[in-house]
Amino acid sequence: MALIAILPGDGIGPEVTTEARRVLERLGLDLSFEEAPVGGAAYHAAGHPLPPATLDLARRADAILFGAVGDPTCDSLDRHLRPEQAILGLRKALTLFANLRPAKMFAGMEDASALRPEVARAIDLVIVRELNGDVYFGEKGMRTTADGLRQGYDVMSYDEAEVRRIAVAGFEAARRRRGKLCSIDKANVLETSQLWRDVVIETAADYADVTLTHMYVDNAAMQLVRDPGQFDVIVTGNLFGDILSDQASMCVGSIGLLPSAALDVAGKGLYEPIHGSAPDIAGQGKANPCAAILSAAMMLRHSLGEPAAADRIEAAVAAALASGKRTADLGGTCSTREMGDAVLAAL
Amino acid sequence: MALIAILPGDGIGPEVTTEARRVLERLGLDLSFEEAPVGGAAYHAAGHPLPPATLDLARRADAILFGAVGDPTCDSLDRHLRPEQAILGLRKALTLFANLRPAKMFAGMEDASALRPEVARAIDLVIVRELNGDVYFGEKGMRTTADGLRQGYDVMSYDEAEVRRIAVAGFEAARRRRGKLCSIDKANVLETSQLWRDVVIETAADYADVTLTHMYVDNAAMQLVRDPGQFDVIVTGNLFGDILSDQASMCVGSIGLLPSAALDVAGKGLYEPIHGSAPDIAGQGKANPCAAILSAAMMLRHSLGEPAAADRIEAAVAAALASGKRTADLGGTCSTREMGDAVLAAL
Ligand SMILES: CC(C)[C@H](C(=O)O)[C@@H](O)C(=O)O
Ligand SMILES: CC(C)[C@H](C(=O)O)[C@@H](O)C(=O)O
Repeated sequence: MALIAILPGDGIGPEVTTEARRVLERLGLDLSFEEAPVGGAAYHAAGHPLPPATLDLARRADAILFGAVGDPTCDSLDRHLRPEQAILGLRKALTLFANLRPAKMFAGMEDASALRPEVARAIDLVIVRELNGDVYFGEKGMRTTADGLRQGYDVMSYDEAEVRRIAVAGFEAARRRRGKLCSIDKANVLETSQLWRDVVIETAADYADVTLTHMYVDNAAMQLVRDPGQFDVIVTGNLFGDILSDQASMCVGSIGLLPSAALDVAGKGLYEPIHGSAPDIAGQGKANPCAAILSAAMMLRHSLGEPAAADRIEAAVAAALASGKRTADLGGTCSTREMGDAVLAAL
Repeated sequence: MALIAILPGDGIGPEVTTEARRVLERLGLDLSFEEAPVGGAAYHAAGHPLPPATLDLARRADAILFGAVGDPTCDSLDRHLRPEQAILGLRKALTLFANLRPAKMFAGMEDASALRPEVARAIDLVIVRELNGDVYFGEKGMRTTADGLRQGYDVMSYDEAEVRRIAVAGFEAARRRRGKLCSIDKANVLETSQLWRDVVIETAADYADVTLTHMYVDNAAMQLVRDPGQFDVIVTGNLFGDILSDQASMCVGSIGLLPSAALDVAGKGLYEPIHGSAPDIAGQGKANPCAAILSAAMMLRHSLGEPAAADRIEAAVAAALASGKRTADLGGTCSTREMGDAVLAAL
């Protein structure tokens, strides 16, 4: 029996993970569930955004379904106590280094995008973002310069092993899709990027069937607006991936529909909707549960060896949307529960 | 008499700066011009992308009109000999720390944008990007880890003086416009950003008339797609500014129309079109000279104390476009020279 850790977190996290859990339970698979608090909710309950019991559950579980973290009442806390530290801590503690962020236009959802329909319709890409290194986890701090000035610093770095394992994840993803991998860096300025590019090129030797290209991050930010349909798989570092994956999601428009995965080398993963905790609508039954439900589908595919069940969930979400069911973020009137019911009915 | 250094550079740089110079000459102001090679052109002519004579001219000049650098034949050179080093070197040597990047929709140009016309039409923002610090100019290199692995590293940092002077540039720009400043950082992860945010907030004490907000860079990349019309002035660091300013330009769509300035504390500046060297169309008379011409207008306004002449140029470009003249990038058939002629005629 596979153990699923449910970490609902803050804001709308509990509402959307509840629906995703109902969908998982309906499948008739041999799954068990355990819940634990995370983020601001955990800080308020246990004094830390990632309490030991939550981390322990995450370690024991076969996969993690994560809601969202982010809580305005924690804004003035020290950085290490803020909700965001929970997700950073989980990624690092469990070596979840490979973030998969699919961005794909759902049929009939073009209206939700700020891009022209003919541009938006062509979006079907996956961003493979590195999650365990880069300027996120380097030495950092405040110091005083020789002139007595306050200075903040953060060291950006990657070593060849870190780059190789994410490059492999990128090539593997490209191989399963349309065979195109675009590696994004800033090698004209950064030594970290130069090493990144060198190692990606070395790794390409094992993937003759994949077409590799390179793009500077500033140009990538342009191309994702101009013609996002040109991309199949993008592989990039933690910081550039943070920016570009959110940009790509917003190009799709309907961020209430977009799931994500964060995987370790063995395929254990943390799955979360890309939307945040949305404190403004929390607890009102307005949130769109589809991204959490589709995150559960990714979990079945990537961590639980149940690709057919994943397909079923994805088809059910598509069918529920095709039948006209919409939550408020997509201009509809369904509640979170009604949307969940619609997916269950389609299952 | 003011001395203008013309650094045409690579690709389409010479073609577009030629037209901008013709426009400047037509104004009847007391200007003199001196040209020098830069970028790949300078490497081929003098063995270095920023030869001493070019740097010396740039120092002597009252303002610099820059074309573009970027030359595929230099791709395999050592980083310090590549064309890009010329622009990085000029920014640093002349302490051009404040990059002004206006992104504004020209009337009738909505078709060039991948955004929906109603979204694109609202774009009227300026990005104030820091150019002298950040991970661009920190200590960097390749080293070997304890495990014997190659590692690339780059130190990101800002001190309070660096942040304060660019924050002031941002607040001043906002005061001249709609009074809204959005500072963009990643303070939930980076100490450099935490200092950035602290100092921007301190600086705000002198600008009670400006409304200051803060946004994380990943959210900013989303908001620039979803609703770019929400922004007036954005102030941000060198790396985030590189990415977001190119994204914002592409939201406008017609990058052949977008100028930029890089200023020192005294208002001396380097002015360049934001499009690159476009080697694929170089020397064919196809390039759009408007961005270079509008860069010359920015020069008149920011470095030469000739705001009326700047207005005249901007009106002439708008008139030429309104009369239907278009280069190929905007779907027209005008040559570079014909477009320049049309602006001169409208002057
Ligand atoms: C909350 C924050 C630390 C996090 C990140 O930057 O990685 C978030 O933006 C994300 O992309 O999951
Ligand atoms: C050429 C490159 C070094 C430069 C930068 O990153 O600053 C360019 O992208 C720019 O924005 O002017």
